[in-house]
Amino acid sequence: MSDDAVRSHIESRFDQAVQSLKAFCRFPSVSAQSRHASDSRACAEWLAARLEAAGLTATIEPLGRPAVLAAAPARADRPTLLVYGHYDVQPPDPLDLWTTDPFEPTVADGNLIARGASDDKGPLFAWIAAIEALRAAGEDLPVNIKCLFEGEEEIGSPSLGPFIAANTERLACDAIAIADGAFYADDTPSLTYGLRGLTYLEVKATGPDHDLHSGLCGGLAPNPLNALAAMIASLHDAGGRVAVKGFYDDVRPPGEEERAIWSRLAFDADAWRAEIGASALAGPSDVPPLERLWALPTLDCHGLWGGYTGEGCKTVIPAWAKAKLSCRLVCDQRAEVVAKQLEAHLRQHCPAGIRLEITSLTAQDPWLADLDTPAVEAARGAIGEAFEAPCALVRCGASIPVAIHFYRQLGVDPLIMGVSLPGDRVHSPNEKFGLDQFRRAIHASAALMDRLGRLSIRKNRT
Amino acid sequence: MSDDAVRSHIESRFDQAVQSLKAFCRFPSVSAQSRHASDSRACAEWLAARLEAAGLTATIEPLGRPAVLAAAPARADRPTLLVYGHYDVQPPDPLDLWTTDPFEPTVADGNLIARGASDDKGPLFAWIAAIEALRAAGEDLPVNIKCLFEGEEEIGSPSLGPFIAANTERLACDAIAIADGAFYADDTPSLTYGLRGLTYLEVKATGPDHDLHSGLCGGLAPNPLNALAAMIASLHDAGGRVAVKGFYDDVRPPGEEERAIWSRLAFDADAWRAEIGASALAGPSDVPPLERLWALPTLDCHGLWGGYTGEGCKTVIPAWAKAKLSCRLVCDQRAEVVAKQLEAHLRQHCPAGIRLEITSLTAQDPWLADLDTPAVEAARGAIGEAFEAPCALVRCGASIPVAIHFYRQLGVDPLIMGVSLPGDRVHSPNEKFGLDQFRRAIHASAALMDRLGRLSIRKNRT
Repeated sequence: MSDDAVRSHIESRFDQAVQSLKAFCRFPSVSAQSRHASDSRACAEWLAARLEAAGLTATIEPLGRPAVLAAAPARADRPTLLVYGHYDVQPPDPLDLWTTDPFEPTVADGNLIARGASDDKGPLFAWIAAIEALRAAGEDLPVNIKCLFEGEEEIGSPSLGPFIAANTERLACDAIAIADGAFYADDTPSLTYGLRGLTYLEVKATGPDHDLHSGLCGGLAPNPLNALAAMIASLHDAGGRVAVKGFYDDVRPPGEEERAIWSRLAFDADAWRAEIGASALAGPSDVPPLERLWALPTLDCHGLWGGYTGEGCKTVIPAWAKAKLSCRLVCDQRAEVVAKQLEAHLRQHCPAGIRLEITSLTAQDPWLADLDTPAVEAARGAIGEAFEAPCALVRCGASIPVAIHFYRQLGVDPLIMGVSLPGDRVHSPNEKFGLDQFRRAIHASAALMDRLGRLSIRKNRT
Repeated sequence: MSDDAVRSHIESRFDQAVQSLKAFCRFPSVSAQSRHASDSRACAEWLAARLEAAGLTATIEPLGRPAVLAAAPARADRPTLLVYGHYDVQPPDPLDLWTTDPFEPTVADGNLIARGASDDKGPLFAWIAAIEALRAAGEDLPVNIKCLFEGEEEIGSPSLGPFIAANTERLACDAIAIADGAFYADDTPSLTYGLRGLTYLEVKATGPDHDLHSGLCGGLAPNPLNALAAMIASLHDAGGRVAVKGFYDDVRPPGEEERAIWSRLAFDADAWRAEIGASALAGPSDVPPLERLWALPTLDCHGLWGGYTGEGCKTVIPAWAKAKLSCRLVCDQRAEVVAKQLEAHLRQHCPAGIRLEITSLTAQDPWLADLDTPAVEAARGAIGEAFEAPCALVRCGASIPVAIHFYRQLGVDPLIMGVSLPGDRVHSPNEKFGLDQFRRAIHASAALMDRLGRLSIRKNRT
């Protein structure tokens, strides 16, 4: 079976693949809305049936919304590739901003318009289309393929970590492809090899045990709003760095090679600033902008509330004030360690008369893959070949918990192969996915299977 | 007409005065609730009728809720005393915490229990009862009495400033008694000669023009919550003083005489701390606690809000954050000047990438009366005589706009003769006013008229 033959099968079956993707997008598999639970199940069953038809054995796994786990018959002389994607979608609201029905996929100007077209049904289905094309070409797959398609990504994958931990044997593999995420830019296909972690705290500061009158008590009563503002302010120094003791101790700076790769990306900080609609950027000015997003930890306040927030004047000294704070973390910081550092700092800066309650809401470690591996090379080659442009190596400032779950539980760094484009209006009305992007994603999937099949990356297992 | 005769008339008519006060308290004259507008009018008409019956000429003034303005026939050889009080009351809610009907006054354990009994119907009616007793004694009043009883004090007296400014001739007087406020302590009758002013700002800090994802944008996007917290923190120095340039320039420190008076009050800071339920007190530790409440300006945050304040984690960098801030001011600070200082400080401390909108919501100058006047002497004497205890000279940290309105528009420092007790549950369920306190307040009112009548404080007027 030559590459040319597979490519030709992908091309000749492409219209059919588009029809299938439209069928996939018709399921309103909205994970956040309980009324769509049966739609999620129907969608999972449809996926399982497609995978069975393509020669895999598929099971429906009873998570909050069912996951689909499938595997092709394995051969000992081939490496195993686990493909991850999610079939659930964001709610389509606000509905009145859609120009077409979000669950009646419509082709216009070379794009498929539908909720989930880009996030994540198109990228996921590209893998099924690639497997189908390989099967149609009449030969065995070059890898032992496994698929894990979940239905709860848009609500934070609450069941996935425990599921992976409980099913390490069934999920055992030599490489993992995550079919989710986006290009660095429209003309820059990319492979994501690093994600920031997250530690998230909620803080409650209590002063008096009841609300007070600022005239009768002001000047002598401890004010938890003033105090909490001061504590939050103390978390940064004048240069924009986090002032928490030990915070940067475990930060691994980007290597020379990484910095060289990033500088070639020519990040346009001023265009980025204009896009967020701010008059200036933040962070330590001696660190290049892209490095602040990808390789530097942060500390942001996400919510702050207390006292009187209605119209006009109320001269209250409130009993309490609250804040939500988080840090994005980079390797080799540990989320639990930073949470403790943050708590110690806040307690140390808490003024007399104020009592603190600190709750840790989530802690996710950062993830950073080794770049010098055959799998990374294969993925870059496959992406570059399919999209006819060099594949950039990028990090992402956000946190995708499944990446670190895969690494920790299965011992394999995933390949995050995002094929959405920045302008796909993911999570927004009129979400779209380019048909050419879809076609090339199918080619990239087939090419990755082909390239991995030629590597000797199979691990020894009992 | 001897003092003894007046005292005896007050005593013999006291039961009748209590019955009248009960009738007064039956009006649900709640200014905050529009459904009680007709109750306010009925209450004002009842007051006007009582004043007419006591020989005054009364008019109903059409403010938001009507005010009652009354005057006895004037004689050129007597000084004129203007008495101020308010007949409106706070809403009685929460109703289920009342042990009796808030508008069916009930006598128990020597107290009259009713909404408004202490704030301010009892203290106000003490003046009418005193005038009635003097009239019953058959002689002219020792002063030319004028009464201004308003019905909107509990909603901030929105109409009173303009009304006073427009009626300076009708309100012209030589002394003013404000029948509102409280004793310094149960066993310490007091005359309030100073009030703090107030300047109140609302601040909005805007960063990006829409909410951002802290993973994708954190580290580079300006965060208005972090920025606003830092700006608020910058308003105080480490010692608890306000760090705004020029803030203390116009602060007049208490004189030696005042400090001596206050030290005799033996303010129990620890008991005060326990009462507000805080573990420590705030403010500059080198300033005595009572002085921090009465003679030092403050800066308190009353409300702070922005971002996500619901349950759990949301990693948003919000587009905006808001705060409500105010300063309590002391003489000779000017509210408008401090508002400008505060705004300049905030703008100076606003980091790059953040846009500020600052709105001034109110500005009230502080008020501090001259202590060495015959009127102050008369008031202290009248209070001390009626309550059989020395009358303390006190300041109050709160702001009562009518005091500065009277001073500015009529050129007369009011005598704030509060006769409520700290435990009267003013604004709370089961508000009460001691009958003995009421009886002595009537005596104090009569004694003040008597003492003022013997002074030569009448101003020359055209």
